[in-house]
Amino acid sequence: MNEQAAPGRDSIPYDSADKITEEVLARYALTEDPRLREIVMAVIRHLHSFAREVNLTWSEWEFAMEYLYKAGTFCKGPRNEFIALSDTLGLTMLMVAATQPKPEGATLPTLIGPFYVPNPPEYAFGTDISNGAQGTPVHVSGRILRLDGQPVADAAIDVWHSDDRGLYDVLDDFEENGPWGRARLRSDEEGRYAFWSIMPTAYPAPTDGALGDLFMNTTHRYWRPAHLHFSIVAPGCDPLVTHLFASDSDYLDQDVAFGVRPGLVVDFAHCPAGEAADGRVVEVPYRALTYDFVLTSSGG
Amino acid sequence: MNEQAAPGRDSIPYDSADKITEEVLARYALTEDPRLREIVMAVIRHLHSFAREVNLTWSEWEFAMEYLYKAGTFCKGPRNEFIALSDTLGLTMLMVAATQPKPEGATLPTLIGPFYVPNPPEYAFGTDISNGAQGTPVHVSGRILRLDGQPVADAAIDVWHSDDRGLYDVLDDFEENGPWGRARLRSDEEGRYAFWSIMPTAYPAPTDGALGDLFMNTTHRYWRPAHLHFSIVAPGCDPLVTHLFASDSDYLDQDVAFGVRPGLVVDFAHCPAGEAADGRVVEVPYRALTYDFVLTSSGG
Repeated sequence: MNEQAAPGRDSIPYDSADKITEEVLARYALTEDPRLREIVMAVIRHLHSFAREVNLTWSEWEFAMEYLYKAGTFCKGPRNEFIALSDTLGLTMLMVAATQPKPEGATLPTLIGPFYVPNPPEYAFGTDISNGAQGTPVHVSGRILRLDGQPVADAAIDVWHSDDRGLYDVLDDFEENGPWGRARLRSDEEGRYAFWSIMPTAYPAPTDGALGDLFMNTTHRYWRPAHLHFSIVAPGCDPLVTHLFASDSDYLDQDVAFGVRPGLVVDFAHCPAGEAADGRVVEVPYRALTYDFVLTSSGG
Repeated sequence: MNEQAAPGRDSIPYDSADKITEEVLARYALTEDPRLREIVMAVIRHLHSFAREVNLTWSEWEFAMEYLYKAGTFCKGPRNEFIALSDTLGLTMLMVAATQPKPEGATLPTLIGPFYVPNPPEYAFGTDISNGAQGTPVHVSGRILRLDGQPVADAAIDVWHSDDRGLYDVLDDFEENGPWGRARLRSDEEGRYAFWSIMPTAYPAPTDGALGDLFMNTTHRYWRPAHLHFSIVAPGCDPLVTHLFASDSDYLDQDVAFGVRPGLVVDFAHCPAGEAADGRVVEVPYRALTYDFVLTSSGG
C-alpha cells in the first residue's frame, strides 16, 4: 500500500508487545557497570511484568503518570513524597529489616521517618527537652547496653517526637519556637540516659499529597500509633534508628508505615502528681518509662 | 531486659523481612474497589520482589528516593518527567502495543511523545505548515483509508515535528513565533491529504532532568531518529497516534523511546529544485513522501 520500502524495516525487532520487553532489556544489557545493569534490568522486568499481569489499560497508565506527577510536585525542600510512598507501601520497613538483621536480644531498628533533623540541641542528663510543647509529662530513662550486657558510655542519643496534638515542631512553629521535643542526649559512664518530655500521641500521615489519594481510595489507614523516635550512635556499635511505641496507643496494629516490631511496644507507667524518683516535683499525674537499648557491635 | 511487657506485642506479625510483604499485602487486601485492590497489590508485590531479588542496599534505596525526588522537581506545567521515564524504560510502547493491537494491513500506532499541543492551527490542503521553521523543504501527501481500502473523508490530521536543529516550537520560541511545524489538516472527499513543511532531524531527549542521570550511567543512547508525528481522528475509525520515521535517519535501531515499528520507516524521495508535482516552484532540492494511513473501524 505504501510504495516506499525502507531497507531493514522488517528486521526491527520490537513489533509485538511480546518483543518490546526483550528489546528494551537488550538495549540496557549494554550498560557497563554490572550493578547498575542488574538493577535497571530488574526495574524494567518488574515494570513490564506488572503492566502485563494486571492488563493495565491506557487510562490506568495515564492515571499512574498523573499520580507520579502529583507526588513530584509535593517534593519540596526536605519533603520527599516518594519516601512517604515507600513507607506506606512497606518498602522502607522491608529495607530496614533486610539490611539491618539483628541477633536475638538486640533492639530492633525501624524507619527513620520524615521528621528527623540532624544535630539537634544537646541537653544535660535528666533535663526536660519539651521546650514548651504541650502534653502529659513523661520521664524516660534506662541504659545503652551491648549484647553482652556491658554499658555503652558516651552514646549520642537523638530523640524526637510529636506533641499531644500529634504535631512535630517541623510541622508547626519550628522557625519561631523550635526545636521542641527534639534533643541530643549522652549516656554516662554506666550507659545511663534520662530525660523529661511530654507524651506523644497518634497522628495521621500528611494526606495533602499523592498519599492522600491512596488512603482515600484504599482502606489502608493513615495513622501512626504514638511513639518516640530514637537515633543512637555510639563508638564501636552499629548505629540504631528505632521507635518506642506506647502500648496503650490506638492503631498499634495498623501503623501506616508498618514500623511496629516486637520489643518496641512498651508500657508507660501511670504515676500520680508529686515528687518523681529523680527528685523533680510534678504537679500533674505523669507517665514514666524505663527502657534499655541493646546495640550490636560494629564490624560484626 | 526491658521490664515493660506490653500485652500482645508478640503477636505483631511483621517481625522478619519475610513477613513484612505478607503483612503489607494483607492490609491492602481490605481495599474495597476490586480493580484498585488488584493494581495496588501487584505494585507492592513487584516493588518488594524487586528489592529482594537484587538485594537492594540501604544506600541504593536512598539513591532511588533521591532520583525520584529529582524527577519530581522537573515536573512543571506540561512537562511530566515520569512519562519521559516510562518512554525510556519501554513501558509506554508496551502499553501502546498491548492496548492498541492492529490487524495486518493497518498502520501501527506509536507513542504520542511530550510535544503534542491540542487543537493546532488549521491549514488548507496542500499548503506549507512550516511557518518559518528552517530546513529542507518536504512535500508529504497520501490518503486516509479504511482497512477495506475505502477512503476516509474529513479526517482531522494533526502533524507536528522538529526542525533541522532537532527542536520543536515548544522547546524554542513558541510564545513569540509559534506554532510552527504544527498543523491540523483535513482529508478531502477521496481521503487525500497533502502539506509542505521542512524535514525533521534526529534529536536527543532532554537530559537536564532525571533522565540525564540514567543516560549518562547506562549506555542507553538518548537519541530519537528523525520523524514526523501524526494524530488522526476520523468518524467511525479508531484514533491513530503514530510517527513516520525517515529511513535515512541515524539512530533508527536505537530510538530512546522504542517507538520505531514496522511500516513506519519510510523513504523520503530526493527531488531536484524546480516545479513540484503540485505546481509549487521550489528553489532548492527538496524531499517528497507519499504515505497512506490505514485506520481500523471503531467498535471493532
